[in-house]
Amino acid sequence: MNIKFIENGTVTTPMGFTAQGVCASVKPSNKTKRDLALICCEKPCSAAAVYTKNLVKSSTIEITKKHLENGTAQAIIANSGNANTCNADGVAVAKKMCDIAAQTLGVNADDVIVASTGVIGQPLPIEPIINGAEMMRGKLSKDGGTNAAEAIMTTDTVKKEAAVEFVLDGKTVTIGGIAKGSGMIHINMGTMLSFITTDAAVSSAMLSEALGEAVELSYNMVSVDGDTSTNDTLAVMASGLAGNTEITEKNEDYKTFVAALTALCKTLAKKLAGDGEGATKLLICSVANAKTENDAKGVAKSVICSSLLKAAMFGEDANWGRVLCAIGYSGMDVDVKKVDLSFVSAAGEISVCKNGAGIAFSEEKAKEILSEKEITIKIDLKDGTAYAEAYGCDLTYDYVKINGDYRT
Amino acid sequence: MNIKFIENGTVTTPMGFTAQGVCASVKPSNKTKRDLALICCEKPCSAAAVYTKNLVKSSTIEITKKHLENGTAQAIIANSGNANTCNADGVAVAKKMCDIAAQTLGVNADDVIVASTGVIGQPLPIEPIINGAEMMRGKLSKDGGTNAAEAIMTTDTVKKEAAVEFVLDGKTVTIGGIAKGSGMIHINMGTMLSFITTDAAVSSAMLSEALGEAVELSYNMVSVDGDTSTNDTLAVMASGLAGNTEITEKNEDYKTFVAALTALCKTLAKKLAGDGEGATKLLICSVANAKTENDAKGVAKSVICSSLLKAAMFGEDANWGRVLCAIGYSGMDVDVKKVDLSFVSAAGEISVCKNGAGIAFSEEKAKEILSEKEITIKIDLKDGTAYAEAYGCDLTYDYVKINGDYRT
Repeated sequence: MNIKFIENGTVTTPMGFTAQGVCASVKPSNKTKRDLALICCEKPCSAAAVYTKNLVKSSTIEITKKHLENGTAQAIIANSGNANTCNADGVAVAKKMCDIAAQTLGVNADDVIVASTGVIGQPLPIEPIINGAEMMRGKLSKDGGTNAAEAIMTTDTVKKEAAVEFVLDGKTVTIGGIAKGSGMIHINMGTMLSFITTDAAVSSAMLSEALGEAVELSYNMVSVDGDTSTNDTLAVMASGLAGNTEITEKNEDYKTFVAALTALCKTLAKKLAGDGEGATKLLICSVANAKTENDAKGVAKSVICSSLLKAAMFGEDANWGRVLCAIGYSGMDVDVKKVDLSFVSAAGEISVCKNGAGIAFSEEKAKEILSEKEITIKIDLKDGTAYAEAYGCDLTYDYVKINGDYRT
Repeated sequence: MNIKFIENGTVTTPMGFTAQGVCASVKPSNKTKRDLALICCEKPCSAAAVYTKNLVKSSTIEITKKHLENGTAQAIIANSGNANTCNADGVAVAKKMCDIAAQTLGVNADDVIVASTGVIGQPLPIEPIINGAEMMRGKLSKDGGTNAAEAIMTTDTVKKEAAVEFVLDGKTVTIGGIAKGSGMIHINMGTMLSFITTDAAVSSAMLSEALGEAVELSYNMVSVDGDTSTNDTLAVMASGLAGNTEITEKNEDYKTFVAALTALCKTLAKKLAGDGEGATKLLICSVANAKTENDAKGVAKSVICSSLLKAAMFGEDANWGRVLCAIGYSGMDVDVKKVDLSFVSAAGEISVCKNGAGIAFSEEKAKEILSEKEITIKIDLKDGTAYAEAYGCDLTYDYVKINGDYRT
């Protein structure tokens, strides 16, 4: 199959969707950055979502879950600057946000997905939401997707948007999405905030299944700092406007859709990892020839989460012993005496360890390879055929700086 | 019972033990820092040890395990500057180190404990070990314990030594110890390197049991960076010279001994945590009124490991939402709607969260409390009676700096 990435693709690329984002001053000190987003479809969509596994959850998640019980949604309202988590009035505020979106967009409040991101434990004032929504009344557009992408950013330094195009049942189908996330990002959450749209016709049951499969290989393989957020929400809406025969079972069309959705989610997940708080490099850990897929995933995750390795990558130091160490404590079924290891980037590949022991290598060449912006830590376990990849970033002075004083 | 900490107490404080440490230039670039230690008892001791759970293990661990099979040891040889891990000739070198110690000290090679710490994957040259041991021949002394403590340091900034005195079976008994560890420190390893001596008479079987109990509440509750080292070894030797009736079963004397050993290990563990790489503060997370001890431990560990919280503590920012977040993803049985939370230091205590929701507090007072060097994050789960503590440190620019280029 042929999955094509669309230049400047975003959440409004699929047919039927418009969006907007404005500066609503959710944090009173914010006078310029967009911090409130609306995304809307011209018709009700089948919809599905996954959420954080943290026991401490944003009140928005309680409301979104309820609204998606019937598998239908038409709009999304999301703010940055305040997580609406651990607040006594959180549920009431989240509900009110849905009412505001419904009233602004002319949709049912039950069909609104709500999400918040930002500081935990500070009451979310409703006035900025009312005012911001009013500013967007009648202003949602195809061009507004990128403003929505900006509005959900917190410590992100770049907007995360992408869209793919492929053929399904003879029709051209599009999937688009935006995401935010920079700190408090760890494996096995739904994700940070991410909103995905498609014009494919897919039942909500199949959409939910497809989302589960795509997340497993994309957002669930990303770690920035080992902290699982309280607000992670990944929602997908399918308008059906592409005109394909609706996917209602796990047939070939379903497989095609999952492959495209996974490609889109992987791209957004890598954008999250590469823009991790303070990050200067995207790290990819590829693990080949594991006994099982679970072993491959476990090793990849363990390596990508190692603070020591992340700091070494920031220092462009080929300290491969830390990779081996992280393989060793992964808890996976690995014969450490078989492990081969190399570092790969646009500047080439350098082998540093064979059969679990160090080999001579050029420090100069290693430094050159590690000076690139995207580094692959390539592990060959030589113990099977399973493969997995995990995504992360280096650990830098700026991560500490950003998180040393985040609330003010 | 009365456990008294001895001023300037160290590994040579208990009767029968002498030690020394010298600069052997294990790393050719090291011309001044002591990096080779010998510890010896005038008679064979009952002995026990715990080790890292990492699959990738230093060759020293293989040899030490073998030498402790009979529960007897008389001496310890340990070096810093090279981990002797992932080296093709590692086992031969570790054996050779025991031979050198045996020949220098006039003990059996089978009664020597060997440990190494430092860079992984670089062959450990034997010449510096031979020369360093020769320098120490006939020079082991009561005063040499502190030199041994220095010799096992890597990125540590302070020596970790302590000793306690208590009464057992009518005799005054002493336990002393040294430890090293700064980075690559995480919960559920044996520990980093730590060597403990006592003049109590304890069978090796009971010594092993006692060590297991003490470790569980001390070294196994410390995290600096989430990386479990390949070399962690905690060994204890008991000379019996105090003259108490040998402990051979879990009687009252055993309980007294465990309490004293635990107190010593907790003190050394806190020294490790407070001297974590780049750390400016010791963090203690105390969890009260959990359903089970396991829940209390799990919550304490989760909080102490949170990179976001660690960075906030460096910034002296009372970002309690991150504590709640880490409680939420701990995987423990917690009712997050019941959680009370306060920060405590020498400057006082400030309550920041009641029943899982934020309460108003003075940011000025919070800043004052968090500006101290030792901070307790005090969590009340109000859901039972179990209690636990975990130990860690803040995450600072210097952690990144130290680990960005460690090998050179």
